Amino acid sequence: MKKLRELSVDETFEAFVLLKTADVRVARNGKKFIAFTFQDNSGTIDGKYWGASDEDIATFTTGNVVLLNGKRELYQNMPQVKIMHLRLAKEGEPTDPSLYMEKAPIDIDEMKQEFNDYLLDITQAKWHRIVRHILSKYQKEFFEYPAAKRNHHAFAGGLAFHTLTMLRLAKSVSQEYTELNPSLLYAGVMLHDLGKVHELSGPVATEYTLAGNLLGHIVMVDEEITKACIELNISELDEEVLVLKHVVLAHHGLLEYGSPVRPKIMEAEILHHLDNLDASMQMMLGSLKQVNPGEYTERIFGLDNRNFYLPNI
Amino acid sequence: MKKLRELSVDETFEAFVLLKTADVRVARNGKKFIAFTFQDNSGTIDGKYWGASDEDIATFTTGNVVLLNGKRELYQNMPQVKIMHLRLAKEGEPTDPSLYMEKAPIDIDEMKQEFNDYLLDITQAKWHRIVRHILSKYQKEFFEYPAAKRNHHAFAGGLAFHTLTMLRLAKSVSQEYTELNPSLLYAGVMLHDLGKVHELSGPVATEYTLAGNLLGHIVMVDEEITKACIELNISELDEEVLVLKHVVLAHHGLLEYGSPVRPKIMEAEILHHLDNLDASMQMMLGSLKQVNPGEYTERIFGLDNRNFYLPNI
Amino acid sequence: MKKLRELSVDETFEAFVLLKTADVRVARNGKKFIAFTFQDNSGTIDGKYWGASDEDIATFTTGNVVLLNGKRELYQNMPQVKIMHLRLAKEGEPTDPSLYMEKAPIDIDEMKQEFNDYLLDITQAKWHRIVRHILSKYQKEFFEYPAAKRNHHAFAGGLAFHTLTMLRLAKSVSQEYTELNPSLLYAGVMLHDLGKVHELSGPVATEYTLAGNLLGHIVMVDEEITKACIELNISELDEEVLVLKHVVLAHHGLLEYGSPVRPKIMEAEILHHLDNLDASMQMMLGSLKQVNPGEYTERIFGLDNRNFYLPNI
Amino acid sequence: MKKLRELSVDETFEAFVLLKTADVRVARNGKKFIAFTFQDNSGTIDGKYWGASDEDIATFTTGNVVLLNGKRELYQNMPQVKIMHLRLAKEGEPTDPSLYMEKAPIDIDEMKQEFNDYLLDITQAKWHRIVRHILSKYQKEFFEYPAAKRNHHAFAGGLAFHTLTMLRLAKSVSQEYTELNPSLLYAGVMLHDLGKVHELSGPVATEYTLAGNLLGHIVMVDEEITKACIELNISELDEEVLVLKHVVLAHHGLLEYGSPVRPKIMEAEILHHLDNLDASMQMMLGSLKQVNPGEYTERIFGLDNRNFYLPNI
Amino acid sequence: MKKLRELSVDETFEAFVLLKTADVRVARNGKKFIAFTFQDNSGTIDGKYWGASDEDIATFTTGNVVLLNGKRELYQNMPQVKIMHLRLAKEGEPTDPSLYMEKAPIDIDEMKQEFNDYLLDITQAKWHRIVRHILSKYQKEFFEYPAAKRNHHAFAGGLAFHTLTMLRLAKSVSQEYTELNPSLLYAGVMLHDLGKVHELSGPVATEYTLAGNLLGHIVMVDEEITKACIELNISELDEEVLVLKHVVLAHHGLLEYGSPVRPKIMEAEILHHLDNLDASMQMMLGSLKQVNPGEYTERIFGLDNRNFYLPNI
Amino acid sequence: MKKLRELSVDETFEAFVLLKTADVRVARNGKKFIAFTFQDNSGTIDGKYWGASDEDIATFTTGNVVLLNGKRELYQNMPQVKIMHLRLAKEGEPTDPSLYMEKAPIDIDEMKQEFNDYLLDITQAKWHRIVRHILSKYQKEFFEYPAAKRNHHAFAGGLAFHTLTMLRLAKSVSQEYTELNPSLLYAGVMLHDLGKVHELSGPVATEYTLAGNLLGHIVMVDEEITKACIELNISELDEEVLVLKHVVLAHHGLLEYGSPVRPKIMEAEILHHLDNLDASMQMMLGSLKQVNPGEYTERIFGLDNRNFYLPNI
Repeated sequence: MKKLRELSVDETFEAFVLLKTADVRVARNGKKFIAFTFQDNSGTIDGKYWGASDEDIATFTTGNVVLLNGKRELYQNMPQVKIMHLRLAKEGEPTDPSLYMEKAPIDIDEMKQEFNDYLLDITQAKWHRIVRHILSKYQKEFFEYPAAKRNHHAFAGGLAFHTLTMLRLAKSVSQEYTELNPSLLYAGVMLHDLGKVHELSGPVATEYTLAGNLLGHIVMVDEEITKACIELNISELDEEVLVLKHVVLAHHGLLEYGSPVRPKIMEAEILHHLDNLDASMQMMLGSLKQVNPGEYTERIFGLDNRNFYLPNI
Repeated sequence: MKKLRELSVDETFEAFVLLKTADVRVARNGKKFIAFTFQDNSGTIDGKYWGASDEDIATFTTGNVVLLNGKRELYQNMPQVKIMHLRLAKEGEPTDPSLYMEKAPIDIDEMKQEFNDYLLDITQAKWHRIVRHILSKYQKEFFEYPAAKRNHHAFAGGLAFHTLTMLRLAKSVSQEYTELNPSLLYAGVMLHDLGKVHELSGPVATEYTLAGNLLGHIVMVDEEITKACIELNISELDEEVLVLKHVVLAHHGLLEYGSPVRPKIMEAEILHHLDNLDASMQMMLGSLKQVNPGEYTERIFGLDNRNFYLPNI
Repeated sequence: MKKLRELSVDETFEAFVLLKTADVRVARNGKKFIAFTFQDNSGTIDGKYWGASDEDIATFTTGNVVLLNGKRELYQNMPQVKIMHLRLAKEGEPTDPSLYMEKAPIDIDEMKQEFNDYLLDITQAKWHRIVRHILSKYQKEFFEYPAAKRNHHAFAGGLAFHTLTMLRLAKSVSQEYTELNPSLLYAGVMLHDLGKVHELSGPVATEYTLAGNLLGHIVMVDEEITKACIELNISELDEEVLVLKHVVLAHHGLLEYGSPVRPKIMEAEILHHLDNLDASMQMMLGSLKQVNPGEYTERIFGLDNRNFYLPNI
Repeated sequence: MKKLRELSVDETFEAFVLLKTADVRVARNGKKFIAFTFQDNSGTIDGKYWGASDEDIATFTTGNVVLLNGKRELYQNMPQVKIMHLRLAKEGEPTDPSLYMEKAPIDIDEMKQEFNDYLLDITQAKWHRIVRHILSKYQKEFFEYPAAKRNHHAFAGGLAFHTLTMLRLAKSVSQEYTELNPSLLYAGVMLHDLGKVHELSGPVATEYTLAGNLLGHIVMVDEEITKACIELNISELDEEVLVLKHVVLAHHGLLEYGSPVRPKIMEAEILHHLDNLDASMQMMLGSLKQVNPGEYTERIFGLDNRNFYLPNI
Repeated sequence: MKKLRELSVDETFEAFVLLKTADVRVARNGKKFIAFTFQDNSGTIDGKYWGASDEDIATFTTGNVVLLNGKRELYQNMPQVKIMHLRLAKEGEPTDPSLYMEKAPIDIDEMKQEFNDYLLDITQAKWHRIVRHILSKYQKEFFEYPAAKRNHHAFAGGLAFHTLTMLRLAKSVSQEYTELNPSLLYAGVMLHDLGKVHELSGPVATEYTLAGNLLGHIVMVDEEITKACIELNISELDEEVLVLKHVVLAHHGLLEYGSPVRPKIMEAEILHHLDNLDASMQMMLGSLKQVNPGEYTERIFGLDNRNFYLPNI
Repeated sequence: MKKLRELSVDETFEAFVLLKTADVRVARNGKKFIAFTFQDNSGTIDGKYWGASDEDIATFTTGNVVLLNGKRELYQNMPQVKIMHLRLAKEGEPTDPSLYMEKAPIDIDEMKQEFNDYLLDITQAKWHRIVRHILSKYQKEFFEYPAAKRNHHAFAGGLAFHTLTMLRLAKSVSQEYTELNPSLLYAGVMLHDLGKVHELSGPVATEYTLAGNLLGHIVMVDEEITKACIELNISELDEEVLVLKHVVLAHHGLLEYGSPVRPKIMEAEILHHLDNLDASMQMMLGSLKQVNPGEYTERIFGLDNRNFYLPNI
């Protein structure tokens, strides 16, 4: 079976796909139809299911895996599927939604191992205990969640993958500038986005939670450090705690980007730079892999709406 | 004895005053002098003490009350004192520094009483318990601290006075717009600036603390609510808690002003407006009371550097 | 008969409604249709009238009341009416357009009475005469006009209602800050938006006038004060006149918002704060009353495109 | 006698000069001195008069002409005069202050003649009458006032000279773009800065008036048009009047620069461009004439703090 | 034959027109259609060609001239053509695309003559040689290219016409301000936008080139001056060369608009003003000629999204 | 001999120092003095030389090495030297100015070696040839110049050191993101600031050159690539050349920071991030090494005027 991204225009195909979204609407003729987004791990494509019965509507809902017979077409320059037949996947067929979702390029177990190594490199005792405590409390979510609803690292495992990439960059940078404290940098990197396990609803059909909207992930990880201190009997007034909280609170760099304080410590400033660098890189890669050499990407919202060019070299 | 603000140019005087600052410097001739700022509860004035001995330097330090004989002069259009004689105040003389500092225009006990009344008007049980718990923990500091290092409400008791004024405004506004929840508004007002008891060093020679610089008062009051929930056995996930935290976190209104989230709840938006209004009012009053009708104030930093005119009417 | 906002999806109904807009267009098949917006005092709903004859087009024009038989549907997630039958309302039926338009929550006569009381509280003679003179000249329009084409107070009587709310807030604030001059504040509030009787075309199908586009309401009320001075034989150079004009000219607070000067007098600054507060409050209420507890509003353009949450408490 | 700008360092000289400012201060030794700014029509220079007696202070006041014996020196890289002798100019000597002030490069009578020619070119009757009416009312001030307190055209006659230069540019531009209405452009140019006769205190020791601070010159010329309409019995509602007012109100181009409306008519946009061009040109010339080829000017506040280079060509 | 802009609604017509764009799409019924934009020298109009065969698609491509029989209609308030018949223009019929494109209002030969006159007025030898060298290298493109892909001067010959208009304005301004160096101003004007012959793809179906996107026209004309110096054996270090390059590099005035340096020389500042003035004028004229007196234009993107009013005078 | 930074207050000392600046001024008493800034490789200190004779002024000029006997004092909280004796260094004493200037922390020969290694890693032929050609042309200046007049890397060899640090970071980042083209990244890094050899006057008493002010270093390196192409017979139109120029032109990231284009290629975006990171790091280190743990630095202009805290950990 071909993947969705591999189909050419006017090609007919059969494929197991995940129903990523399934919105019921009314057509001009008064009849209902379902506007689907189908997904496999190569990408997504839209398609309309005309004249949907009430039973169809009850059957084909978000999160189900279906067997789709269709034809890839272009509608107003956008690819879409003309649906020819559709049924739910049966037992014995590949019905696990996670098979159809984009994943981090590294295996979870490998990532866990590498995290452990970095954790051991946090040699300052209080930071080590706090980070270990919080990570173990949210281990499951941390390795499953995306890093965002859309834009960069918006895939299952994206949160851990983004954090891991930053740990590796932090290591290179610490080696280049020996004045930096690697323990503080690693501890800050590990925690900086962890509040997203509260801010986002999970790896599938990711939405912002109420807490995410009202508090934001930056404040929520600060609260986690506060609670960890109580649970570990570490004084919140210790300078080590203030400094770790600061590095995490300041990581968006500018107040306009949601940090309540700007970096006032060298490691906070650097963590912000690395976060920016990895996010930019990931957004560029996400768009550039959809074009051929000599072409421009679409405009990327998170990069000030710039489009990028893939050189022909 | 005349107050400092009552003196005319070239008038000689004798007065007990507080040494607000006392900086030792070297003159062009190589001798040391002390640059004083003298303070009584009518205002402040600068004066230089030429040819200071090491003993003088050890004696006349910040926070002491002295008996000053001097003459008020103008130097480059700014008032200053020509110091004729200076000695420490003795026992039996008015040596309590707080006698010379600006104070809130209402007595502390009256303020406490009025606070209690508003606390009783918080009828939602969780908010009532959380606010009562935190206020009683920091009651002493709350009624002593200024609301800022400079600018608005920068006087002893200023924090409580600012909060009380906002409670009264909140009451009027709740009566005008009945859709507002007065319990939420009062709870938010009471807590909104309470983090300043951690952010500022205290009522005398007020400075920002390390925690103030690294975390800021907005995050610190959020942490206090987190701790109160633990101590009171209230779930942090309750919508009442999220909403209360949000109202407090969002009170600066804009991310650029240090709130990590913008108001997304009606009462958060209104609290921000009332905070702005009282701060503007207090800054204008502070400057306007130093000029006569028909004159302009100096430019006020916190009001976009505007100067204000006192009409001749 | 049910109101438009009370209908459920797929419900058929009959109702008298106002034709708020009636745009004639050509369908893909070359035939004409009319795109209606129907309105009653609970809200509005769109509906298309297919295959309209020239007679239909001449009959069903903006501002007429019709009897509508239809079915409420959803089209691309937006409510619309499937029109089953339509005829003009006849004599004896409720044909007065004002029955179908949103209104200020207070009766006009009550508002007039309350305005008179505030007018008596303007004790400074020149301000009193000027305000009374202008208000009586435009009394009819002042109590009929909306305060805006859309956004806040965009309903018949909205201008007077917005002004009245601000007078009440001004009264509370004057009582809290006794340094404010209530006469000046009331006079400024009463006149601040009065130029809108020139800027807007009226309560129905409100548009900006040419004068509104080329001069704006702020300048036009300044001109009204100039003319009032001539007619009342008050010197334009009197400080009372300059100060009143300033309070009115500066009420948008920032040059970017169209005030030619920024507030330089205490009452001008406060009037700006109260104007902001009431506009924000009205925009939030307008959106929040369309959602249920636990839901978010749509994004509100006039509030920096934020959406708001209605707590579940 | 040499002019002030012609003196070299360490040169002694005798010259009649105007006392532009004369501020009394107290020196470190407790004695009074006067800080003078001397002016002739080539420029200004500062000098301190040490040990001033009360009689000196009463004699040497702003606006008097004096005979100064002094020596030009450098103090902290700024030129200053060491005063050797000073006395008031006597009868028979050149005591008229206007002899010492910078002037427009064209004679007033020539300017008046050229204005009349342009006035005749305003062929639209209402604009012609309004402009003639206002200009004749303020003719004296219009030809005496500067166009600003500092920055561009800050010299006696500067207002008329700036207006005249813009009329000439307007003529060239109208000839290049025949779609422009020269009558409207000339009428707008003639009135655009006329409000400065109210905004500024006059040609000597120019300050902002209270009306200037509270209303600004843009609003005040709009009021003048309103009054002219009443006096000339022209309806304020005529489109010709609205359009003329608009061109004047919009001439600062951006709300941030104090126009209450942005240009919405071609001639308003062009008037704004020409105003900008002449102001920039005048500021550059003012600074460049103080440097030699191959040198940079000081930074010019009104041009975003840029400095300019005079090429060596 | 009528021009496209002269047709009234529902009028049938026959006309030779250029296929400006021809996009193939799939309709809801699965059949292909072509979305055309037709153009003649009065303007453009869209039209859909339903049920296009593969032969139609191969025949009716961008850049061809066709004979169109159609009916002008309104679809959603926008004019469109209902296509009744379509065929390619034959030999002997007016098949030259340039007949259907908008042109500069002056004949190319006249423009060339006027350019030569201005070139002779560049009396500084190095500037004269450099400008002559570059202009003769790109003479053909310079007189054919538009000045932009859209917005101002987006027509064949627009680049030369824009440059010529600026030369005329530069002459007037140099006469008004005799301190300006007309040679430098003319040389700067002639070169300022010449890099557009590299930045844009040409007069038909204008797009940005890769070099245009990656380097921009400002840098490319600087490179041309560098190369001209090498070819003419003029030292790049000569102040005349630096100054000429600066005037060209700085002509966008602000860094935000793409100039790598802000104007630091009088002529650079003035060139920027004139460029702005002509661009604004051209954008306003382009929009205003599409409306009648008493109407507003559409919003103009390049003028901060303002709309303009054409007075009824 | 002690270094300047090692002296305590009131300590007398003798030291060879470089005269970094020597400005002649006139004191209030009319006598001349010289305001010196003395420098050794630990830092700088100011001192005034009162009553300077014309011979002193001719002797003690910028760039000379002197033997200074003095006493370190505090004047208005800033350290200064009271000069007790001063003479020029004689032959046989350490008179080489470079001994007293701050230097890059790596030896020049080591840097050259490392550069060569990176040059070999540019495997794309055209980029390799262009970079080698330009570097060899400016080799001497490249390894001597600072990277800025002040702020980051403002020391001899700073330009090469900054470039080398970025090469190392570029290597780490290329290894982490294998989609990046290391040849392009290295070529871009090597050239990105090379224009500073034209923009700055040299390692001693560094000033901006006229070319630096009028063109800027970004444009000048683009010109160097243009010339290199001519000299190496590489077509300027090759995509490899366009792409290399783009990476260099875009390295300031934002138009507001002086890049004429924003990054549109992945390697351009990353080069900008690395440049930012190293500049921030260098500015922080420069300030932090002047404070003790537990202290704040002064505000750093290039980092938005933030001050930084050195943790006590």
